[in-house]
Amino acid sequence: MPNGSRIRVGIVGYGVIGKRVAGAVARQADMVVAGVADVLTDWRMRAAARAGHTLFGAAQEHAVAMREAGLPVAGDLEALLGETDVVVDCTPKRVAARNVEIYRRRGTRFILQGGEKHAATGHSFVAEANYASAVGREATRVVSCNTTSVVRTLGALKRVGLLRSARGTLLRRATDPWESHLGGIMNTLVPEEDIPSHQGPDAQTVDPDLDVVTVAIKVPETIGHLHSWVVRLARPASREEVLAAFRTSSRIAFVEARDGLPAPNAIKEMTGDLGRPHGDLYEVALWSDTLKVEGEELFYNYMVDNQAIVIPETVDAIRALSGRERDAAASIARTDAALGITGDLV
Amino acid sequence: MPNGSRIRVGIVGYGVIGKRVAGAVARQADMVVAGVADVLTDWRMRAAARAGHTLFGAAQEHAVAMREAGLPVAGDLEALLGETDVVVDCTPKRVAARNVEIYRRRGTRFILQGGEKHAATGHSFVAEANYASAVGREATRVVSCNTTSVVRTLGALKRVGLLRSARGTLLRRATDPWESHLGGIMNTLVPEEDIPSHQGPDAQTVDPDLDVVTVAIKVPETIGHLHSWVVRLARPASREEVLAAFRTSSRIAFVEARDGLPAPNAIKEMTGDLGRPHGDLYEVALWSDTLKVEGEELFYNYMVDNQAIVIPETVDAIRALSGRERDAAASIARTDAALGITGDLV
Amino acid sequence: MPNGSRIRVGIVGYGVIGKRVAGAVARQADMVVAGVADVLTDWRMRAAARAGHTLFGAAQEHAVAMREAGLPVAGDLEALLGETDVVVDCTPKRVAARNVEIYRRRGTRFILQGGEKHAATGHSFVAEANYASAVGREATRVVSCNTTSVVRTLGALKRVGLLRSARGTLLRRATDPWESHLGGIMNTLVPEEDIPSHQGPDAQTVDPDLDVVTVAIKVPETIGHLHSWVVRLARPASREEVLAAFRTSSRIAFVEARDGLPAPNAIKEMTGDLGRPHGDLYEVALWSDTLKVEGEELFYNYMVDNQAIVIPETVDAIRALSGRERDAAASIARTDAALGITGDLV
Amino acid sequence: MPNGSRIRVGIVGYGVIGKRVAGAVARQADMVVAGVADVLTDWRMRAAARAGHTLFGAAQEHAVAMREAGLPVAGDLEALLGETDVVVDCTPKRVAARNVEIYRRRGTRFILQGGEKHAATGHSFVAEANYASAVGREATRVVSCNTTSVVRTLGALKRVGLLRSARGTLLRRATDPWESHLGGIMNTLVPEEDIPSHQGPDAQTVDPDLDVVTVAIKVPETIGHLHSWVVRLARPASREEVLAAFRTSSRIAFVEARDGLPAPNAIKEMTGDLGRPHGDLYEVALWSDTLKVEGEELFYNYMVDNQAIVIPETVDAIRALSGRERDAAASIARTDAALGITGDLV
Repeated sequence: MPNGSRIRVGIVGYGVIGKRVAGAVARQADMVVAGVADVLTDWRMRAAARAGHTLFGAAQEHAVAMREAGLPVAGDLEALLGETDVVVDCTPKRVAARNVEIYRRRGTRFILQGGEKHAATGHSFVAEANYASAVGREATRVVSCNTTSVVRTLGALKRVGLLRSARGTLLRRATDPWESHLGGIMNTLVPEEDIPSHQGPDAQTVDPDLDVVTVAIKVPETIGHLHSWVVRLARPASREEVLAAFRTSSRIAFVEARDGLPAPNAIKEMTGDLGRPHGDLYEVALWSDTLKVEGEELFYNYMVDNQAIVIPETVDAIRALSGRERDAAASIARTDAALGITGDLV
Repeated sequence: MPNGSRIRVGIVGYGVIGKRVAGAVARQADMVVAGVADVLTDWRMRAAARAGHTLFGAAQEHAVAMREAGLPVAGDLEALLGETDVVVDCTPKRVAARNVEIYRRRGTRFILQGGEKHAATGHSFVAEANYASAVGREATRVVSCNTTSVVRTLGALKRVGLLRSARGTLLRRATDPWESHLGGIMNTLVPEEDIPSHQGPDAQTVDPDLDVVTVAIKVPETIGHLHSWVVRLARPASREEVLAAFRTSSRIAFVEARDGLPAPNAIKEMTGDLGRPHGDLYEVALWSDTLKVEGEELFYNYMVDNQAIVIPETVDAIRALSGRERDAAASIARTDAALGITGDLV
Repeated sequence: MPNGSRIRVGIVGYGVIGKRVAGAVARQADMVVAGVADVLTDWRMRAAARAGHTLFGAAQEHAVAMREAGLPVAGDLEALLGETDVVVDCTPKRVAARNVEIYRRRGTRFILQGGEKHAATGHSFVAEANYASAVGREATRVVSCNTTSVVRTLGALKRVGLLRSARGTLLRRATDPWESHLGGIMNTLVPEEDIPSHQGPDAQTVDPDLDVVTVAIKVPETIGHLHSWVVRLARPASREEVLAAFRTSSRIAFVEARDGLPAPNAIKEMTGDLGRPHGDLYEVALWSDTLKVEGEELFYNYMVDNQAIVIPETVDAIRALSGRERDAAASIARTDAALGITGDLV
Repeated sequence: MPNGSRIRVGIVGYGVIGKRVAGAVARQADMVVAGVADVLTDWRMRAAARAGHTLFGAAQEHAVAMREAGLPVAGDLEALLGETDVVVDCTPKRVAARNVEIYRRRGTRFILQGGEKHAATGHSFVAEANYASAVGREATRVVSCNTTSVVRTLGALKRVGLLRSARGTLLRRATDPWESHLGGIMNTLVPEEDIPSHQGPDAQTVDPDLDVVTVAIKVPETIGHLHSWVVRLARPASREEVLAAFRTSSRIAFVEARDGLPAPNAIKEMTGDLGRPHGDLYEVALWSDTLKVEGEELFYNYMVDNQAIVIPETVDAIRALSGRERDAAASIARTDAALGITGDLV
């Protein structure tokens, strides 16, 4: 793609992640949304159009159905790819696998989301950890919300030589708000049957050196995930050293229970007050006042907004694949500025 | 207040309603936020400051505490009232009663919210029903979220001569999202002990002619209220006539279960997609496709966003009290335009 | 079947209803549980065996699988029917339809549950309403939990000439506790798309004269349903007359919000304290202290334990089909005594 | 107290714990319920009377109020203590502290529950860990539900020399079912502000050698707690060795996710099927099929029925204080047999 022009980004799948990626891309000075492709014909597509996005059918038949539903449609997926430098596939788990063949055939660089397997692209991405290795690649996979938070936080501890091993209990929200009328769990808890859960090995696809094991439990709420960690430190450290380590990441933000933010619902109210779209929390919101160091053990909890945390990573991944920006810090700074990420929340 | 200048609006109580009123006032070309007064010193005040509002302590002691917490404070309530044409009191239930004396003593026109009693101002307000009678008054009370929805919808039926009597079952959200870590009900339902519930008589403070009785039941969710109505029509009517009646209000918006919007959580996702602050739903969201007329009986359900529905009413009430705009339709049109209310949602 | 001996009852489907029917039948002096047939091999079958029931596979293959799982199996469905006078089919919705052919072929009298259609048996049953017409029949259908409550309560009003018409809003629990890890709704409400909902016409399969219309809304709890009714009386009546009408049914029990029983969770705690199996509430629990008469309108709320309310009806239906007891009142009295139903709860 | 006669047990506070203790004591051949004292006059006292318990007012004024409410009252607390060998105080947190003076003055042996502090009795009790040291004491404290589970499970690992250190994440139910209409959290999670949470030190009041640290998070459900543990073993061990260690306790019962018991709601259904009062789960229900050993690390999850787990401990504590039974194993066996605890569930 020619230097100087904007990176043209196609979004395939306009769901929880796709619509946020589209919104975030639209706010980057060096990018433009080429269009969004989907299979739906209901209010969600009308909302996409109202948000200013050009609509495409995921296949020809969907373009036809959209047109019949009165939606302004510009064509199908192939048409979208014709105007796209980097495509971000945000389709539901495992649907993307089929699209990959199309992207490969057309030579369009592509990004998958964390529901797909590492092998689908051979590269798994978290900006602060391995941006450089994605520069100019054909494809990468932005890892899942939980894994992104793991790599950000443990990566921060590792950078300053504090990390020995980490064991995390992950309380996973049962379903997303938009579809909470369709399913979810009620008045119970559901431990995942696989111990350890997949997030540890998944984090290792980004950084194989991480000694991390997780156990996951589904909980009856829709707001986001909550992680509780026990970390063995590589050496004795003060509380302040640990906090300073986390501060090296602009995408870990401290919240304080005693500042009126003791729980995810309050944190989401705050991000709503900040005027962020959908009240999105892009950062790991880590409770700094309740964090505790005991000897060589470190304990802390944080919240993960599963709908939003991968959005800045995806924007960086677009820039990396495009080859326009080779420097991780520079890309992160641009993304952060465009999304209002400052390291602090309020 | 001098013509031509903007109406200076003071907000007392920066909670769920207060912050929304402040944001909505800031979007009106003929109004300006003079400042917000509160008693808090935590993130909520920092968010208010970041939103551009001037902070005042609800009393001198609160101003001191805010200053000590590092907040930029411009003074106390008296100072705020010195720069205010109309004050909107959004303090918690029954706190406002005490503030009223201060407003009266200073001669500042004031608006109370629906938690207060009708007698506190002698006038209860819903823009489409009785704007004219509030013009130039010293004070009015914007009725509660539930009552506002009742007056809007039954008022629409009444305007076209269709209303005989209405019986409603109100499913009330148990608590607001921001404080759902502090209380609420779990895995149960709580019928209100008073049958009928207070919303019927409350609606009659706006329109004494309404024949309306309600029963209220608290339900274990935080998104908003849901009303289910059985209306006896004054004469046989078609479904289309009923829908046309509702369409006479810009603040009743139709949603369709079969368009992917069968439940409040999906509707809130949609208003979030529309980019509204906090995903606010100012309209009564009435399910038009499931509405049913059987003989002289009419059945329908709608959703009430208890955090947002009174916001446009409050803006209109400010304009009415100020005396600057004597025409209800003109005020409603200005408010609607500023808040993105069009009669349709998406 | 020979007089004097006990009625041999087979239970097909040992789920939420089946296991309760089995337990209730075991407590009747004139009945015996011939066995329970199911398709499962997990803890539920072991619990059935521990409860003293003889196990049968729903088909030969299930008998084999049960045996392989180490369960004591006495045979398959055909074997069970060989020792059964009346079979109660409690299989999931619409599965029973296939079993009916088997019952008919073998000439075994059978009872279906409310998930099946009226046409499947041509007779729909509520003991207080139409026991007599079921005596000696080949088959009947015990109507659903909601419909049972409607017929009991409106039937009581009708018996004393008070009923003109009834409009009910039904808050339906989203899923049963045992399977609440598999599905359900979260932090939302889901109005049924069909207005009126099916319970009105369903009640009319038992009593065609009832003027009843219902609207149903799914709510995020698992304990039971809650109905809110507006009844137009046939004539002015006092509160006491209405309560006396409800007292004519032993299966309507009064609860008082002001006695510490304001909500279904508290009511279930109480039935647990009474030592009932699973804390089952067989009665309609009607809030007598909040019931209100205004002119010719009557308002009241009640709770329905969807897992338990049809159990006494099913026991009566067995007796009716068997032909051993032709008198409704006599059967109801026997059933009530065996289950601890007294008209009062505590 | 004379040998040969039954131990006369008084229960003070007939709430969630008190009523279960009363029921469990009534099932012991060597004990008798002297009576229950409380302050209430509503259905709960009527249910207590129906359960066969003699009622006493917690003070004279309560006895009067009970009598006025039509309850059969035998006297006040002093009267109850006059007929009591061991009193079990099950009053709400910190109320018991005041009662202790009365018990001491009268020389009545007494048991407190886990809401009270260790210092209140100087002895904290878990039967399998320290029955012997409670024999003949004036008083003991049965530790809380969570702590009881910790001591049972880690104690089992310690007995066979497998325990080095344990780190647990405790998901705490937000409120009990009976009062879930009064409070609780909704659609959020609330991490406790103190890390570590108090259960670790509390377990050390029973066994000071346990190296245990816990983090607690309140979750929006009412069924019970769920613990997720990471244990460092003292030496490499097989999965079978670990399971065998847990099997040394009759009060740890295995459940299997793949047997249809993946979540607390399903487990409670099962205990209901077993016919236990209120479906009580006295055992730690530990998921044996998902338990995992990796090198010298052990991972497992279990459920704690916070309403029931301390009941068998309390029965044993009564026997210990009474001095009638000096042997822990003998007392545990008697209690288990009376309550249907067998080591297996179904």
